[in-house]
Amino acid sequence: MDTQKGRQKRIKPEVLKGFRDYPPSEEIARQKLVGVFREVFESFGFSPLQTPALEKIETLKGADYGSENLETIFSFTGPEKVDMALRFELTAPLARHVAGNPEMALPFRRYQIGTVWRVDKPGPGRFREFTQFDIDTVGTASMLADAEIMAAICQSFEKLGLPHYHIRYADRKVLNGLAKFAGVADGQAGDVFRVIDKLEKQGIEAVRLELGPGRTDQSGDKIAGLNLPPKQIDTIVTFLESQKTETDPLNAAARLLAGIPEAEEGIAELRQIGEYLIGLGVPLDKTRIDLTIVRGLGYYTGPVFETVLDDIPEVGSVFAGGRYDGLVERFLGRKIPAVGASAGIDRLLAALMSRNLITFQSTISEVLVTVMDQDKMPEYIALLNDIRSNGFKAEIFLGETKNLTKQLRYADKVGIPMAVIAGSDEFERGEVTVKNLVAGRAQALEVADREQWLQAANIQETIPRQNLISYLNNLRAQIRAGQARPESK
Amino acid sequence: MDTQKGRQKRIKPEVLKGFRDYPPSEEIARQKLVGVFREVFESFGFSPLQTPALEKIETLKGADYGSENLETIFSFTGPEKVDMALRFELTAPLARHVAGNPEMALPFRRYQIGTVWRVDKPGPGRFREFTQFDIDTVGTASMLADAEIMAAICQSFEKLGLPHYHIRYADRKVLNGLAKFAGVADGQAGDVFRVIDKLEKQGIEAVRLELGPGRTDQSGDKIAGLNLPPKQIDTIVTFLESQKTETDPLNAAARLLAGIPEAEEGIAELRQIGEYLIGLGVPLDKTRIDLTIVRGLGYYTGPVFETVLDDIPEVGSVFAGGRYDGLVERFLGRKIPAVGASAGIDRLLAALMSRNLITFQSTISEVLVTVMDQDKMPEYIALLNDIRSNGFKAEIFLGETKNLTKQLRYADKVGIPMAVIAGSDEFERGEVTVKNLVAGRAQALEVADREQWLQAANIQETIPRQNLISYLNNLRAQIRAGQARPESK
Repeated sequence: MDTQKGRQKRIKPEVLKGFRDYPPSEEIARQKLVGVFREVFESFGFSPLQTPALEKIETLKGADYGSENLETIFSFTGPEKVDMALRFELTAPLARHVAGNPEMALPFRRYQIGTVWRVDKPGPGRFREFTQFDIDTVGTASMLADAEIMAAICQSFEKLGLPHYHIRYADRKVLNGLAKFAGVADGQAGDVFRVIDKLEKQGIEAVRLELGPGRTDQSGDKIAGLNLPPKQIDTIVTFLESQKTETDPLNAAARLLAGIPEAEEGIAELRQIGEYLIGLGVPLDKTRIDLTIVRGLGYYTGPVFETVLDDIPEVGSVFAGGRYDGLVERFLGRKIPAVGASAGIDRLLAALMSRNLITFQSTISEVLVTVMDQDKMPEYIALLNDIRSNGFKAEIFLGETKNLTKQLRYADKVGIPMAVIAGSDEFERGEVTVKNLVAGRAQALEVADREQWLQAANIQETIPRQNLISYLNNLRAQIRAGQARPESK
Repeated sequence: MDTQKGRQKRIKPEVLKGFRDYPPSEEIARQKLVGVFREVFESFGFSPLQTPALEKIETLKGADYGSENLETIFSFTGPEKVDMALRFELTAPLARHVAGNPEMALPFRRYQIGTVWRVDKPGPGRFREFTQFDIDTVGTASMLADAEIMAAICQSFEKLGLPHYHIRYADRKVLNGLAKFAGVADGQAGDVFRVIDKLEKQGIEAVRLELGPGRTDQSGDKIAGLNLPPKQIDTIVTFLESQKTETDPLNAAARLLAGIPEAEEGIAELRQIGEYLIGLGVPLDKTRIDLTIVRGLGYYTGPVFETVLDDIPEVGSVFAGGRYDGLVERFLGRKIPAVGASAGIDRLLAALMSRNLITFQSTISEVLVTVMDQDKMPEYIALLNDIRSNGFKAEIFLGETKNLTKQLRYADKVGIPMAVIAGSDEFERGEVTVKNLVAGRAQALEVADREQWLQAANIQETIPRQNLISYLNNLRAQIRAGQARPESK
C-alpha cells in the first residue's frame, strides 16, 4: 500500500517487537496494583527513590548475576561517545545511589517503581520492557528488616483481596552449611545449589542423578552430572527429603546439621525471623520455611524468600528477595548489609487478570452526561459540574451525533457504567434520567424475557433533578457491590 | 585510586551527564504534584494510557515539529537490527496507538505520565531525561474539549495551593487570517509567526525590524529580516499592538480582521471557549485572550493556550497545548481532530521548590519507634503495629546502636517528625514518651533560651500508653498546621 512518493508514504502504527501498550483497561488495574504496594510499604516507612532509565554501562555491568548478562541489555554508544545502557533491574542503580551519597543516613528504606528493559526472546507473555516494584532496606543486619519486608508483602496481598498466597523462606547459610557438612569442595558448592534449585520442577530423582552421573531428560537431551561421591549425594538427598517430609523442617535441619557453625547461624536467623513475623501479626499459615529454596541470584548471603499465589502456582514466585551485602562493594570497596525484594508488576497483573482475580474497569469515567439538545449546553455543563464536584469521574459526550442510542453505545463500548440523560422536557420539569449501563449490558447479553427484566433490574429511572447525586451514589455502591462493571471489549 | 587488578577495580558511582536521581525529598514532592494532576484529570474522565519508552524510529521521526529533530533523539540499532529510539515526547506514541487501534471508541480522553529523553546540551536545570504529564482528547471538534482541558488545568493549580497563575489563549486561525489580511505570501506565513513568537521576549520594535530589514541584537549578532513590504509590516504591527493595548482584544481583532473567513472562524471558536470556561466555573481572571501567542509547535491548527505562574514568570509556560488534527494522518492517511496539552513535571517541580511554593518532606516516615532495650523487642513491635494500623507511616530503628541520642539523630537527619521512646521503666509503668522532632530541630537552630523554649514548645512528653494514638494524631495535625516538617539536609 505504501507508495514511494515521500509525502504519501504511510507509517505502520506498530510497536517494536517485544513491546506493548497498556490501554486504560490494563493501566487502571496496573495503577491499582502498584498503588496498594505503595500504600503498604509507605506505612512501613519506605520512601520513594527514582533513578535514571539510562546508566553508564559499567554501573550495570557487574550486576550480571543470575541469567542476565551483557547480551540481554539494551546498550549503545550515546552522546559524548559514552557507552550507556537501559537498566535491566533496579538494584544496581540503588547501590550506585547509596555509594554516591556517603552522607546519607542509614538504614535507608526505599521503594522504587521503575521500568526495566531486557533483550529476551519475545514470545507470548514475554516482553522486553516491564515494570518492577522494588523494596530494599540498606545498612542494617537486623533480621527485623527481612521480617518487615515479608510482613508488608503479606499485607499487600491481603489488601489486594488475594488471600490465597504464601511466602516460602530459607537461609543461604543453611545450604552453605549443608555443602560443608556433606564435604562438597568449595568451588563446587555453586553447582550443587544450581542442581538443588531444580528440585521443585524436576523432583528428587532428577536431582539425585544430576548430583551423580547425570541424566537424560524427557526430550532425550543428555544433562551432565556433577559426579559427586555417593556419600555426599546421600547426605544432600537425605537433607532435601527431610525438608519435604518432616513436620518441622527447621528442627530437622538443626538435627542433621548440628555442629556446623554456618548452618547453625542460618537456623538462628530463621528462628529470629519467625518470631518477628509473629510479632508483626503475620498469620502463621502464610509463611513456611523450606530450606531447599535457592533463589536464582548468586549474590544472596542470608535469608531468601519467595511469594507464591496458591491459585496460580504455575506463574512461580511473584514477589521475591533476600539478604545480600556485596552489592555496594563494587563502588565503595566495603560491604554494606542489605535486604530487598522485587515484584514483576506486569507478570503479576497478567496472571491476576487471566484468572479474573483482579476486578478491572476499561475507563476511568463513571458517568456520561449525554447531550441531546445543543441549545441546552449550559444546563448540561451545570449537571456535569455538579456530578464532578460530588466526587464522580464524569465526562460529557463530545462526539458529533445527537442520537442518544449512539451516545449510549459509546458509553457501553468504553465501559462507562452510568449515563445521565436529559432533554428540553426533562429540564423544564426539573427531572433527569439515569441509566445503569452495567445492568443494561448484562441484560442484552443474558436475559430472554425483556419485560420481566426491565421491571426487576431498574436499569433506567427518571428522578427529580435534586435527587441526582444521592441516586448516583446509591447506584455506584450497587454496581461496585456486584463487581459488575463492564469489561473491556 | 583504581588499580588494574580486575577484582579490586572500583567503579565510580556516577550518573550519566544530563541525568539525575530523585531522592525521597524530591520524589515525594513529584509524586504529590503528579497525583494532583492525575486526580483532577481523572475527575474530568481522562483515563491512563501507557506506551513503551522505545519506539521504531519512523514512529517518532515525523514528529520533528518545533526545535526537536533527529539529532536530539537517543537512537540506536537494537535487536533484530531495528532502528529504535527513546521517545522524546508522548504525542507521537499516542497517535501511533490510536491509529493502531481502529476499533477504539472515539472521543478518547487519555492522560499519560511518562519519561521522555532528549539529547539537549546539559546545564544547570537542563536534563536529558524528564517526566511529562500529557492529556489529549482525540476525535472531537467540540470546543468544549479545549475548554475542559483549560478548566482542569485551573483546578489542578488551585488544588496544588498555587492560586497565582493564569492561562493565556489564542487561536492559530486568527493569525492565519492576519497573514492573509496583510497579504503575506502563503509560503512566508510560518516565518512571520516565528517572528511574532518573539514579541513577548524581544518587544514590538524587534519584531518590526525582523519583519522588515532585520536587526542587530545585543550581542552584536546580525539577525536577518523577512523584508516584508512596509504596508504588510504596518498591518501586522497594528494588530499586535491592539492586542496589548485594547481592553477587549477579541473585539479589536474582530474589528481589524472583519471579512476574513479564517479569522472570523477563529474568533468564533474563542468566543465559544470563553462561554464554556464560564460554564465550567473557571474564574474570569484566570484566563486571558492574547492573540499574539504562537506556541512553538508548527502543527497547531486552532486554539492554543499556555499556563504561566504569576510568581515565577521567568520559567515560562508550565502547562501548554492546543488543537491539532494532522497527527494521526502520518499513520492513518486521514485527519482526526484532537486537542491536547503537556506539563513538564520536573521543570515545574524545580520552580516550585526553588520558591518554597510546594511543601516537601524528606522521608515518607512520620514516626520512629526507638529501641533502647533489645529484650523488649516484642513490646516495641507491638507499639509499631499499633501506630501503623492507625494510619501512620512508621518505622522502627534498625541500626546497631542502643544510644538514644544517635537514634534521634538518625530521625532528625532523614527528617522523621515524631519519635516514640520507651525503656523497661516506661513499659512497666504503662507509659511512653513522644518527642516532637520538628520543634526540637527548630529549637536547636533558633532558640537561645533553652529552658524557656522547652516549656513553651512541648517538645517531649511522657503519656499513658493508651493515649499514644490520639496524642500522635494531635501532634501530626499540629505539625502539619505549622508546615514545620524538617527539610532535607
